[in-house]
Amino acid sequence: MSGPLSGFKIIDMSRVLSGPISTGLLADQGADVIKVEPPAGDIVRQMGGGKGMGPGFLTINRGKRSIVLDLKSEQGIDAVKRMVEGADVFVQNFRPGAIEGMGLGYDVLKAINPKLIYVSISGFGETGPYAHKRVYDPVIQALSGMADIQANDANDRPRMMRTVIPDKTTGLTVAQAITAALLSRERTGEGQKITVAMLDTMIAYLWPEGLAGLTMVGNEANVRTGQLAQDLIFKSKDGYLTCGAVSDSEWKGMCAALNKPQWLDDERFNTARGRVVNAPARLQATGEVIAERTTAEWLELLDSHGVPCAPVLTRPQILTHEQVVENNIVQEYNHPGLGRVRQARPAAQFEKTPTNTEQLAPELGADGAAILTELGYDETQIAQVLGS
Amino acid sequence: MSGPLSGFKIIDMSRVLSGPISTGLLADQGADVIKVEPPAGDIVRQMGGGKGMGPGFLTINRGKRSIVLDLKSEQGIDAVKRMVEGADVFVQNFRPGAIEGMGLGYDVLKAINPKLIYVSISGFGETGPYAHKRVYDPVIQALSGMADIQANDANDRPRMMRTVIPDKTTGLTVAQAITAALLSRERTGEGQKITVAMLDTMIAYLWPEGLAGLTMVGNEANVRTGQLAQDLIFKSKDGYLTCGAVSDSEWKGMCAALNKPQWLDDERFNTARGRVVNAPARLQATGEVIAERTTAEWLELLDSHGVPCAPVLTRPQILTHEQVVENNIVQEYNHPGLGRVRQARPAAQFEKTPTNTEQLAPELGADGAAILTELGYDETQIAQVLGS
Repeated sequence: MSGPLSGFKIIDMSRVLSGPISTGLLADQGADVIKVEPPAGDIVRQMGGGKGMGPGFLTINRGKRSIVLDLKSEQGIDAVKRMVEGADVFVQNFRPGAIEGMGLGYDVLKAINPKLIYVSISGFGETGPYAHKRVYDPVIQALSGMADIQANDANDRPRMMRTVIPDKTTGLTVAQAITAALLSRERTGEGQKITVAMLDTMIAYLWPEGLAGLTMVGNEANVRTGQLAQDLIFKSKDGYLTCGAVSDSEWKGMCAALNKPQWLDDERFNTARGRVVNAPARLQATGEVIAERTTAEWLELLDSHGVPCAPVLTRPQILTHEQVVENNIVQEYNHPGLGRVRQARPAAQFEKTPTNTEQLAPELGADGAAILTELGYDETQIAQVLGS
Repeated sequence: MSGPLSGFKIIDMSRVLSGPISTGLLADQGADVIKVEPPAGDIVRQMGGGKGMGPGFLTINRGKRSIVLDLKSEQGIDAVKRMVEGADVFVQNFRPGAIEGMGLGYDVLKAINPKLIYVSISGFGETGPYAHKRVYDPVIQALSGMADIQANDANDRPRMMRTVIPDKTTGLTVAQAITAALLSRERTGEGQKITVAMLDTMIAYLWPEGLAGLTMVGNEANVRTGQLAQDLIFKSKDGYLTCGAVSDSEWKGMCAALNKPQWLDDERFNTARGRVVNAPARLQATGEVIAERTTAEWLELLDSHGVPCAPVLTRPQILTHEQVVENNIVQEYNHPGLGRVRQARPAAQFEKTPTNTEQLAPELGADGAAILTELGYDETQIAQVLGS
């Protein structure tokens, strides 16, 4: 363990995606993350096949240790409290009120360990009309304006983004908040509580651009429904590519690459503002030209004229794309039980505190006995707590 | 300033979105961020109107100070070096090689301040065939599989997500990495370099779910093209809502809410696996029922049966939604020059180190003289450096 979070211990009671993604990044960065699971295991173990070790589970839980505890038993709750004594961070994402019902609320754990960073993640917030509701990613997309932004135009219906943006973004937000609280604690010596709601996360995340139209009070009626940015995908003779010209110099390059010098004098397109106002006509005309040649031909032409461009890759094509290979972002290694696997390394690369890139995810409860031994439990007590 | 990053100074040479979003979160958390701008200002100042202070600029640059420096002049470069002497973090997102060309490469600044955290953000990576290219958000969406995931089905064309996910996600990733490096430095006393590419960020971000199909080596040919998750939006009599049933108990609640008890015995739908395989038929049948009543009627029915659900809000509707109001995530205050503005507060709420939620963004160069005075420049020198 040599990452920047090396030496910090996290007790992770969270399940599914938002919480485990946050602690997954910190495990990649060297934290000792103890994943507390129910006897049936985190349900993500069952997703995507893999007999308790699906691909999604592997990624977000790599580098963690697993202990199974019965949180309805006094012994199970006592074990969590013993772990908290020597921990730096405690994370949970049960529905509001549940953790207090278990006897593991902030006040209880703070009394055991005043330096603890206690993290509560919720879907909608800890109070209010939605606080009791079960949360799924699409529900947050619906409430945060994401589905509105994804509509094709003002006459189209709202549309979902087809991947769990709110869960993953909440994971990153929580990872940063935990790290910030640990940093602050180095100077003040004080633990504290952090609360994060997925709904808040997405509104804060979207505000600088997707929701920027709501900034000026009194102007909100002018915010249009539907599509924010253009969909800059064009069909070539043999596939799809994206290209775009924002500045005047890029537009000149675009006209040259497409061999349409007459567009430079076209009143609709010869200013940056004109190109925005007349985007539909511009994109249609561009698309008609792009259809005439292959993706490779266009990328070479566009690139040589300084126009930002790229092929639109299918997921398997990512693996062999020359820049992805150059970056060594996808790494292969052997995982016992799963065989040869690929994982993306964490994006941020640290010169002196490198992240761990070839970690395994734990089998359910694999580390229970070792973790209890570290806490001073003897063999009889371990058998009682683990029910074995 | 009372946030968890209080007491840390960041020299931010970055422009546009990815870099400024990262330092924006740290400014919200109390860091002293000095934004070094060219004489024409960060181009985001011009986006969305607002005479040099557009809504997007306000959000991602609130709480920072601004100094204008001519980075082609020796005086301008010297001023950056003087600032770095007393700083904790240096951030830049110029294209690879540019910062070294200015004489502000890692080796140079490390010699001035060995405890410095030096951050380089790139679009594609610092080496390789794409390293020299200009980056825009859609280009990263095309290369990272996002556009593939967003296609409606295997026969549809790839589609873009209509908001800048890569820039914003890179901002969060960088903010966490900076915080982690500062945390590590508290214990080791050592500065270091961090590198982050937007392309890497999106592949790592998507891997746990959107790209999970690439995990098992040898299985990548089975990864389908297009749509990953269902688009769970239904048209009601008067608008749109989302609802979904994953578990058996949620499905029972759904059948009860929709008054379709016969679906419980329908072979296509009576197992979790069946509901996935027969999703098109299930969603069509659900949609036909939802069309018969209003959104409010359905939400009450679905909620009373424990089915996750929400209205699909337009962007202005977010402002008055009861849970958004309860969370106090959107806050109003007066900004000199702009008037009454709304901002989303940072999502993570800290008990003891609260973030700053009503900060102003600086006018171009507003803090130049004050910053140079702090560095020990006299009035004559200040006039020379600022060219005034």
